[in-house]
Formats: sequence, C-alpha cells, structure tokens
Amino acid sequence: MNSFIYDIPTKVYFGENQLGHLGEELGRYGKKVLLTYGGGSIKTIGLYDKVVEEIKNAGLELFELSGIEPNPRVSSVNAGAVICKKENIDVLLAVGGGSVIDCTKYIGAAAYYDGDAWDILLQKVPVDKCLPIIDVLTLSATGSEMDCGGVISNPETQDKIGLLFPVMQPKVSFLDPSITYTVSKYQTACGAADILNHIMEVYFNMDQDLYMLDTVMEGLMKTIIEFAPIAMEAPDNYEARANLMWTSSWAINGFVNGGKRQAWSCHPMEHEISAIYDITHGLGLAILTPRWMEYTLDERTVSKFYQFGCNVLGINPEMEPMEVAKKSIEMVSDFLFKTLGLQSTFTEIGIDDSNFAIMARKACGGGILSGFKPLNQQDIENIFKMCL
Amino acid sequence: MNSFIYDIPTKVYFGENQLGHLGEELGRYGKKVLLTYGGGSIKTIGLYDKVVEEIKNAGLELFELSGIEPNPRVSSVNAGAVICKKENIDVLLAVGGGSVIDCTKYIGAAAYYDGDAWDILLQKVPVDKCLPIIDVLTLSATGSEMDCGGVISNPETQDKIGLLFPVMQPKVSFLDPSITYTVSKYQTACGAADILNHIMEVYFNMDQDLYMLDTVMEGLMKTIIEFAPIAMEAPDNYEARANLMWTSSWAINGFVNGGKRQAWSCHPMEHEISAIYDITHGLGLAILTPRWMEYTLDERTVSKFYQFGCNVLGINPEMEPMEVAKKSIEMVSDFLFKTLGLQSTFTEIGIDDSNFAIMARKACGGGILSGFKPLNQQDIENIFKMCL
Repeated sequence: MNSFIYDIPTKVYFGENQLGHLGEELGRYGKKVLLTYGGGSIKTIGLYDKVVEEIKNAGLELFELSGIEPNPRVSSVNAGAVICKKENIDVLLAVGGGSVIDCTKYIGAAAYYDGDAWDILLQKVPVDKCLPIIDVLTLSATGSEMDCGGVISNPETQDKIGLLFPVMQPKVSFLDPSITYTVSKYQTACGAADILNHIMEVYFNMDQDLYMLDTVMEGLMKTIIEFAPIAMEAPDNYEARANLMWTSSWAINGFVNGGKRQAWSCHPMEHEISAIYDITHGLGLAILTPRWMEYTLDERTVSKFYQFGCNVLGINPEMEPMEVAKKSIEMVSDFLFKTLGLQSTFTEIGIDDSNFAIMARKACGGGILSGFKPLNQQDIENIFKMCL
Repeated sequence: MNSFIYDIPTKVYFGENQLGHLGEELGRYGKKVLLTYGGGSIKTIGLYDKVVEEIKNAGLELFELSGIEPNPRVSSVNAGAVICKKENIDVLLAVGGGSVIDCTKYIGAAAYYDGDAWDILLQKVPVDKCLPIIDVLTLSATGSEMDCGGVISNPETQDKIGLLFPVMQPKVSFLDPSITYTVSKYQTACGAADILNHIMEVYFNMDQDLYMLDTVMEGLMKTIIEFAPIAMEAPDNYEARANLMWTSSWAINGFVNGGKRQAWSCHPMEHEISAIYDITHGLGLAILTPRWMEYTLDERTVSKFYQFGCNVLGINPEMEPMEVAKKSIEMVSDFLFKTLGLQSTFTEIGIDDSNFAIMARKACGGGILSGFKPLNQQDIENIFKMCL
C-alpha cells in the first residue's frame, strides 16, 4: 500500500431535528449568508421555510441563488460569484443534492477570482481560497457533502470537468435521512447506482489494497444492496434512508481510498455522456458498470471479482473463480436493472453511437485511462458499444 | 438509531517516511515544543533522534518530559503542566503509545489550570482550552491518536479515570506502521486484545444499530483476527502492522459508534483492575472479554452473538443461534489465549479475589453499569470470579 494523508475535517450533524444548530454554525463564519438551491423542491417539502427561519432567528442576513441545474453549469457558478462579490457574502449555504453542493463549492472559489469561473475548471488559476461552505443534504448520492470535489458542465463546449481542491471541503454538513423521504423511486435508484460505483472504482484494484479498507468497502456495498430496494419500496423507512445517506458520504470522502493512485474508469466515461446528453449521472454509471466489469475481467483481474462475488454478493467461495466473477457481473446487472429498475441501455434513453469516438477520446484524454484495467480510446468505444 | 454529531478533525500522515512533515505541522502552532515520551524505547529505535532533528531543522525550540508511565499517573500530568507554564510552551509533541498521548492530552489541559491536575479528572474544573497536540504513534492499541479521551491513574487513591474533552483531540497524528516493527510479541498481542474489545464494546448492543456501521465493525474485527498473528510471527510485516495501526484508530475514534449511548462494560471493569495491580490494559481486557460474553449471553442477547459468530468468525449460519453464540465465545477465547498467547486468568498474573468487592463497586459507581446487559455490583463480582 501507499502512504497517504487523511484529512476530512467536515463536521456532520446526522439525524432528525438537527437543523436547530444551523444558525449557530453559520454564525461562526459571519453575518451574510448566500443560500443556494435548485429547482425549488426544497420549497415543496417545507425545507426552505425551516432553513430561512433558522437564518432569521440567528440574526443573519439572507441572499439567494436558485435554479442550480441537475448537471450544474458554469453559468450558475458565475452568477453565484457575482452575488458574493457584490454583497460581500461571508458564508455559503447549499441546500440540495450533489449538484447544488458542487456548484456552491466553485462559487466559493470563484468569489476570489475576477474572470470567468471556467478558468478554474481549466486549471488556469490556483484555488487557494474559498468562502466557507455549509450544506443541508437532500439526496444520498454524490458524497459532495464530505469531500472537496465537484463537477461542472459547460454546455457551450460540451465539457464536464471534475476537480478536487482542499479549500472547497464543506465546514459543516447537515444529514437528515428523513429529508430524503420524498426522493422519488427513480432518483433513489440513480443515487444507489452512483454510490455503488464510487466504491467499485476504488475497490477494483490489483495492486495496493489494505485488507481493512477492503472489508469496509465490502460492508458499504452490502449496505447499498440491502437498503436501496427497501427505500424504494418504503420511502419513509428511516433505517433505509439513514444507511444510504451515511454510506453515500463514506463511499467517496477519501477514507476508503487509503493512498491508492489508480485512476477511476466509469466516472470519466460517464462524464462525457452526461456532458452531451445531460442524463442523470447515476443512470449513466448504472448502464456502464456491468459492461466495464465484463470488459475488464480476465485472468489477471479475476481474483478481485472473486473476492467481490464472495464477500459482497455471498456467492459460494467453492465455485471456480471465473464462474464467481461471471456470476457477480450478472448479479450486479440484475441489481441495477431489475431490482433498482433502471434503464439498461443507451438505446433506451435515446443515445446512439454518433458521438462515441469523440466521447471516448475525451474520456482518456487521447491517451490511456490507467485504471483497474488500462483503457485506451478503442477500449472505451468498445465499452460504449456494449451499452447500446 | 440515535442522532449524532460526527466531528473527527485530526489530520493523519499515514505510512513510512512521513516525518518530514513534522516540523511544518509543529510550526503552525508556535515555536516552543514540549516533547513527551515514556521510558526511552524511542531512543533505542532511533526515533528520538529523527524527531529531534525535524524539530531543530524547523528552527523550533525543544523542551522535554520523559518517563511517562505505562498507566500514566497524575504526577506526570502535573510535571508536564509545570514545564508548559514556566516555558510558555506553544505545542505538545507526544511520541509514544496510548499512555504517552493520554498523559499529554491532560498536560495540554492542565497548562491552563493552576491547581492539581487531578481536579480535572474529578471534573471539578471545566476543560475548554488545551495546548495543541501532535503525536507520533509507536503502538497500535488505544486509539488515543484520533480521539479526544484519555485515562489517568492516581496511585495514592488507587483510582483510574477516563474522560473525553473535544479540545484534547490531537491536531495531527503521524502513523508509521514500520515504527511498530520493534513492538514485542506480547505488547502486539495486548494491543490487539485492546482494539478488539474497543469494537466489541460498541458492537454488542441490542437497540440502536446502523447496519452500515455494523458491517464496518465486522470488517475491523476480522482485520485484527487476521493480522495480529501475522504481526506476532513476522514483526516487520508492513501489511500486518499497517492493518493493525489504521484499525486501532478507527476502532475508537467515534465513527463506528454512530450515536449509541450504551455504556461500555469491560473497560470500566478493567480500569479498576489496572488501577490497583498496574497490569497492561489490553491483558486485563483479554482476560475479562470471554467471561463477559459468557455472562451476558441469554435469550435476549443471543441474536447479536449469532450475527458476530457468522459475520466475523465465519461460523456456519445454519447452526442454532445459541450454538453459534457458544462457539463464538470459545473462538474468541482461543484467539486471545492460544493464538495471541495471553495469560488467561487473574490467578496466573497474581491477582486474587481480595479486592473484587471494592473494584466491582467502583466499576459500576455503586449503581448499574447499563451496557449490553446491565450489570450491578454483584454481577461484576461474579464476572471477576469467573476470571480466577
């Protein structure tokens, strides 16, 4: 294993009725709060009113940016940065899912930059300052609530770029599983597919495992498989929502990584798809995952599939490793497309092969995606074709 | 499950050759460093010289407190506090195992108090300030490197008290598994018993489980059982030492707890033993653990033993739950006393029943220890007797 630095300072209020701490936490960072959110579902569920009440009760001054898109756009980042500069905002409050939190992270960084925020995504300017960020999570999926990364889209260039900057790490996150009771079956399923893939991107690795972290990842994956169907069936099952929510944070906050330097595979491929077709990230990942597993399975990688099949899916360890591997791909596929009921092909969601070449080239930067199994442009095109 | 606040801000440098960051991290907090350590083994293994070199290279001023005892005494806390006040120390650097780090935490708190440090343990004074603490860990056991607690002994009163204060949380911990290559077989075994019991104190709980955290705990326990024997057999096996070290931190940093309010059982009982007999904490826990399991097993608790036996020890789930439970106690006993080779009875280590009544009364504070199975003074005495 490699050496690593563990540094996840986000404080988390987990559970129901924790919003009473919101005013006190915001107040630590100043008086002027910019509240950021999406299409308004937080108003429908009454969360907006609760948040605003906490802000008012704490004697803080409220500004707002609404309408942040599901695949958040750089135009929203720029719009937020303008408000921050004009109003001298002290602290950002993101209320939403991963898209809102991601966007808010870059608003916090762009508040200190005088040009187009896209320059930050193109890494033309350093990011060493960011306004403090607090969030109230409404969807268990991306893990943005406990990491320092975010993904932004630029519809003009059809690019979607994700970066990590330690200064963008949220200071405080409020995780109330009951807030996710109203998340639809479909979005619950997409979130589960996203969380599962976050863990698989790290777990499927041939070189640098720490047994302890493998056992943790196996537990997290079992948790998703156990509770996603329960949450879909009984949306107000607190245990199910709580397990999905806390797992979503730990799947991608860096802990399970433990110094692995392996590139991810499905995420860069999916980002190219949603950059052009604006589909839900978790859905794109769901369609890609079993095909990527199939494409990467060989004599060299079979032992990892075997470990996964036995320890996560409960396949009989006395079966031949290659049989366990194939069965595990089948079971993942069944989980995503039958149990979660997600669409299983690109064709079904209106994506044909016309952009595969350009998407594949962008996904590997014209070189090699050096993940679990190194993939070049042709490999990625092949995987895309398997998804048709 | 209960609500909880997750707040573990300690930054960790994990792996070999990370000490190059020590000077820069100390320097963030000031110029005057008080280095605290134990009996001098850090000199034998060359660690003292490396640490001093880093401090000098960073242009910091070095003060020292050595001789901190294995069950650290309040006299050492007072001695450290005197140096802090006299020399205007800015930052504390604990180099050692749990005892050194525990003691250093209270030195940091006592630096702001003008009376006897024992008043802090008696909770006569509030602890809302503490000098910043950085540590270099030399033993995988107590988890003090990533939590805000510590246990201090007072030989005059034969008391041993453990408390938690958020301000005592280490700022930065250096965890280099290769530093533990020289830890003896016996201390490696005691450390493993300590880590295992930390997890069991939380895992064995009838009410408030979060499935996800149970799976994490099961993984951590499997890790100890897998790697403690390897580290004893091959002391310089990096994978084994790394797995034990990172597991020791996560066993007790608060993450796996997830809002459980249940009291611990074996720890308060063991503290009374080592308060009088000054034995190694992990050894006392090892002797107590299987007897405590036996005493708490009944129709109400059997399901948790069944879960433990199947998921951690790999016992056939088709066996009767009570049979699985009994077999799991036998396997834990075999692991501690055969595989780890620890002494299995109080008699063997020279402890007789003469203090059982007073120790039992102190362990439950004269009332009920409301843990996994509530225990009164008589119950605790019964468990002590089973250890003879």
